[in-house]
Amino acid sequence: MKKRIDRFHEHRARMNDKILSADFLPFKRFFSLDTAAYQEGALDELTKELMGLVASTVLRCDDCITYHLDRCVQLNVKREELYEALNVALVVGGSITIPHLRRAFETIEELENPGGGE
Amino acid sequence: MKKRIDRFHEHRARMNDKILSADFLPFKRFFSLDTAAYQEGALDELTKELMGLVASTVLRCDDCITYHLDRCVQLNVKREELYEALNVALVVGGSITIPHLRRAFETIEELENPGGGE
Amino acid sequence: MKKRIDRFHEHRARMNDKILSADFLPFKRFFSLDTAAYQEGALDELTKELMGLVASTVLRCDDCITYHLDRCVQLNVKREELYEALNVALVVGGSITIPHLRRAFETIEELENPGGGE
Amino acid sequence: MKKRIDRFHEHRARMNDKILSADFLPFKRFFSLDTAAYQEGALDELTKELMGLVASTVLRCDDCITYHLDRCVQLNVKREELYEALNVALVVGGSITIPHLRRAFETIEELENPGGGE
Amino acid sequence: MKKRIDRFHEHRARMNDKILSADFLPFKRFFSLDTAAYQEGALDELTKELMGLVASTVLRCDDCITYHLDRCVQLNVKREELYEALNVALVVGGSITIPHLRRAFETIEELENPGGGE
Amino acid sequence: MKKRIDRFHEHRARMNDKILSADFLPFKRFFSLDTAAYQEGALDELTKELMGLVASTVLRCDDCITYHLDRCVQLNVKREELYEALNVALVVGGSITIPHLRRAFETIEELENPGGGE
Repeated sequence: MKKRIDRFHEHRARMNDKILSADFLPFKRFFSLDTAAYQEGALDELTKELMGLVASTVLRCDDCITYHLDRCVQLNVKREELYEALNVALVVGGSITIPHLRRAFETIEELENPGGGE
Repeated sequence: MKKRIDRFHEHRARMNDKILSADFLPFKRFFSLDTAAYQEGALDELTKELMGLVASTVLRCDDCITYHLDRCVQLNVKREELYEALNVALVVGGSITIPHLRRAFETIEELENPGGGE
Repeated sequence: MKKRIDRFHEHRARMNDKILSADFLPFKRFFSLDTAAYQEGALDELTKELMGLVASTVLRCDDCITYHLDRCVQLNVKREELYEALNVALVVGGSITIPHLRRAFETIEELENPGGGE
Repeated sequence: MKKRIDRFHEHRARMNDKILSADFLPFKRFFSLDTAAYQEGALDELTKELMGLVASTVLRCDDCITYHLDRCVQLNVKREELYEALNVALVVGGSITIPHLRRAFETIEELENPGGGE
Repeated sequence: MKKRIDRFHEHRARMNDKILSADFLPFKRFFSLDTAAYQEGALDELTKELMGLVASTVLRCDDCITYHLDRCVQLNVKREELYEALNVALVVGGSITIPHLRRAFETIEELENPGGGE
Repeated sequence: MKKRIDRFHEHRARMNDKILSADFLPFKRFFSLDTAAYQEGALDELTKELMGLVASTVLRCDDCITYHLDRCVQLNVKREELYEALNVALVVGGSITIPHLRRAFETIEELENPGGGE
């Protein structure tokens, strides 16, 4: 059976493709700004992805948290860095973020066991 | 006349003092967690303050933005780093954050002209 | 197999019925205000449903987005009108709304293929 | 000079009057639901006002916090009850609520010194 | 088949355990503050759980709503008390909370029929 | 003495100018998307400004509300249209939006008396 993270990526890719092929320029322009915001500049990519993770956690969006966790793992984030970023989000955002923290921990487990099924 | 940033610090210090002297332990414990979240660990202080800035901007809290901007300037943040962090927040949080971005720019101006009055 | 939109309507109808038969007048009064807010007045129904769609998207509630998309399609919204309304929401609400935009596109597909199963 | 709490009440009364005299029934009906929600029922008035205070704090609305604090003081809330309610809000809502907690403490001071000017 | 409420508790217990055994002290400290906030003090436990329910509903977190509903039922809340608390949340938080109210009603049904399967 | 609406416009123009002259392209690109979202297309300008007003009200941003109210008045909105849009926002967003509704009414008064001072 497919893992949650794989289903997330398939759904994301398929629907982003629909949005970007909708022949409506403003969506394309927004997506392009979104991609650019995380590219290396004065701040490196990992720092920006961790910022994206913090923002997604305080705003409580599971899909966004999953996306940024995945990017952070790809960029070889250390476990402690991940926890410290999630802790900033937990303190700023409060206990209402805890269900998202639980799901973030599930995603981290999956990302660290890429060969395993569900 | 006092600058906005000075009035902010005075009000913050005076009222935090009232809260912490209220003889109610849970407030003290929360404030202590809050302080600890930004201390150097696997991530350095500036990275954590920039994360606090991003979180405060997407959650749209002017006082929190002012606080983290001030800390970033104390930690010698580069202008480009500040802009890139604010841009992550702008893209994640949308145009509803723009009034806060305007006030953030005012605060940055004040912080860079510490000798000036209002 | 039933479509997502059908399951949404069934669940919504069944639970609204429970709430309204709970013998607790304030719920009934709120639901009545809610219904009235979208009825034709100085603004036509479609404009109000599009406003409901924008509000639901910036507040990031999938069920509310589904409901207003369905109403808009019933009221013969044009595809371009739908995209422009969703774009106002995307710009105001930022990239945190994108997962909801993806699910909105899925719902639009279902609504346009009423005969298809899942 | 008038106190903040008095200016709040004057502004609130004056503008509510404008809204309710705007000859637009839905506003009147919503305000009537709002008033009814805090009236004594299975839960007493103070419990409901404290709930309003918690909701207002996690949603970070200073005017709403001021209103419910004032009502709680009128209903002879004990200081410890007020702190425990504010602490539930602080833990649920996180450090982003702290600036509102500071202003809540200012309001409490004013409410306890009704004779004092500003 | 297991009930939703049972699956919720299992998932919550399993993932909280992972978070608390992650050897990262700040998470433990936050969870400890969170637990303490709902313990009996000047306000009794049920009042605090109802406050947690109101806060969770206006912030629109289904898991948090489920948790506090379960606690309220354990503490022998009366149906009318539950409705009045949910109504404060509905009025403060608006129609965007209605999908959560529908799911809250489902959870209440399950909690009242503890022997039933799904 | 200057009116609130004039001070708003001056501050907005001055700070937007600072942001756009900061030599940081992503801010310029976002502002350009923001402007484009409200231009006439399949939906006319007034409909889009009313959508911006609804989004700003449920997200509770006074500056954004002021901006869109001003645009609506420039586009000759009828009083009833304005009330119906604000009512959609009030019902969706709940009583937590009422302080913003009060300030919106103040702004409407100012916009209708352009010659008056404060």
